[in-house]
Amino acid sequence: MNSTAVLPRKRGRPAKDEGDYRATREALLNAGVAVLTEKGFSATGIDEILKSVGVPKGSFYHFFASKEAFGAALIARYDEYFVRKLDRFFLDEARSPLDRIDAFFADAERGMKRFGFRRGCLVGNLGQEMGTLPEAFRAQLTDVLLGWQRRTATVLEQAQRDGEIDRSTDCTEWAAFLWTGWEGAVLRAKLERKAAPLQMFARIFRQSIGA
Amino acid sequence: MNSTAVLPRKRGRPAKDEGDYRATREALLNAGVAVLTEKGFSATGIDEILKSVGVPKGSFYHFFASKEAFGAALIARYDEYFVRKLDRFFLDEARSPLDRIDAFFADAERGMKRFGFRRGCLVGNLGQEMGTLPEAFRAQLTDVLLGWQRRTATVLEQAQRDGEIDRSTDCTEWAAFLWTGWEGAVLRAKLERKAAPLQMFARIFRQSIGA
Repeated sequence: MNSTAVLPRKRGRPAKDEGDYRATREALLNAGVAVLTEKGFSATGIDEILKSVGVPKGSFYHFFASKEAFGAALIARYDEYFVRKLDRFFLDEARSPLDRIDAFFADAERGMKRFGFRRGCLVGNLGQEMGTLPEAFRAQLTDVLLGWQRRTATVLEQAQRDGEIDRSTDCTEWAAFLWTGWEGAVLRAKLERKAAPLQMFARIFRQSIGA
Repeated sequence: MNSTAVLPRKRGRPAKDEGDYRATREALLNAGVAVLTEKGFSATGIDEILKSVGVPKGSFYHFFASKEAFGAALIARYDEYFVRKLDRFFLDEARSPLDRIDAFFADAERGMKRFGFRRGCLVGNLGQEMGTLPEAFRAQLTDVLLGWQRRTATVLEQAQRDGEIDRSTDCTEWAAFLWTGWEGAVLRAKLERKAAPLQMFARIFRQSIGA
């Protein structure tokens, strides 16, 4: 439900202001995602994000109803970005299904390297912090992971049809195994500030699932 | 280097006070480990830990030089506790080597269940938070994980000698794979508040490494 599309624009509000509002909200979402992938929710001050975007402190509630609503919007934004990335790799018919997963792993490694292994996965960070987060984040984060897993199970089923993996493999369970382990690998890469944990996980995963 | 063992005790300080000091320091370490396994470092106030033990706020520096020194002592304490647990399972010759690992997984599952899946792994929590933690924690946490991995590699080598796993398996790499994936499984169990991610990881790990 997008209320801005339903409610009439305030009479006399010029189109430029509307554009500015959207642009600022976008900037807040982008800055928020960047900070949450690096530091998580508890250690992140809203002030820091507002400052980085140049929004006065008093204006925050003009854009989001609460810190919790902002957090929920950040999870949704990260998921949109991530699903686009997954689809780009997982639906790439130029590669074999298992090669698509490897290509995603390699891309994720480049992404972490680009930020000096400081940024990890927003969902992993918030999952780890769930003990201190708004309870509604729990279902949202779980649903996000289940969405990634469904996409992964579909690629694994294609790999099965193509004979890259055994017919007896439970693709849904292995998709869960991939995301469980990969979140651990991202955590470890961030801790050690190197690509080795990602490469190790990708190598053993392929070796284990391969027919 | 333990300065309390080197410096002469203050003249006239009764043995009872010494005992109280140690008991209070122990209580602070135990309370700190419990809170860090649940909430991590950033979301944890020293005040909250002091209060739970009944130590006045001003006394903290009597026990630890800084919040960082306290954190380092908590990591060391958790490692001691965890290594004792690992040895109890991994050196248990009544079980086959791979069964010892399964027994450890099952015990960890019981441990998480006992605390309603609110408490995870102190090392995983702090690893995830490394972006905002004192830089010295990075090497300490990495060393702790390498210690657990060495113990795990030893069990896997025994499994190899006993024919439970293939001779071509790289035990050091699979030990790293276990801890990388297990930290991910603990994170996921905490997020979803259920044992399924732990059971799934244990099952697929065994199935993948088995000869």
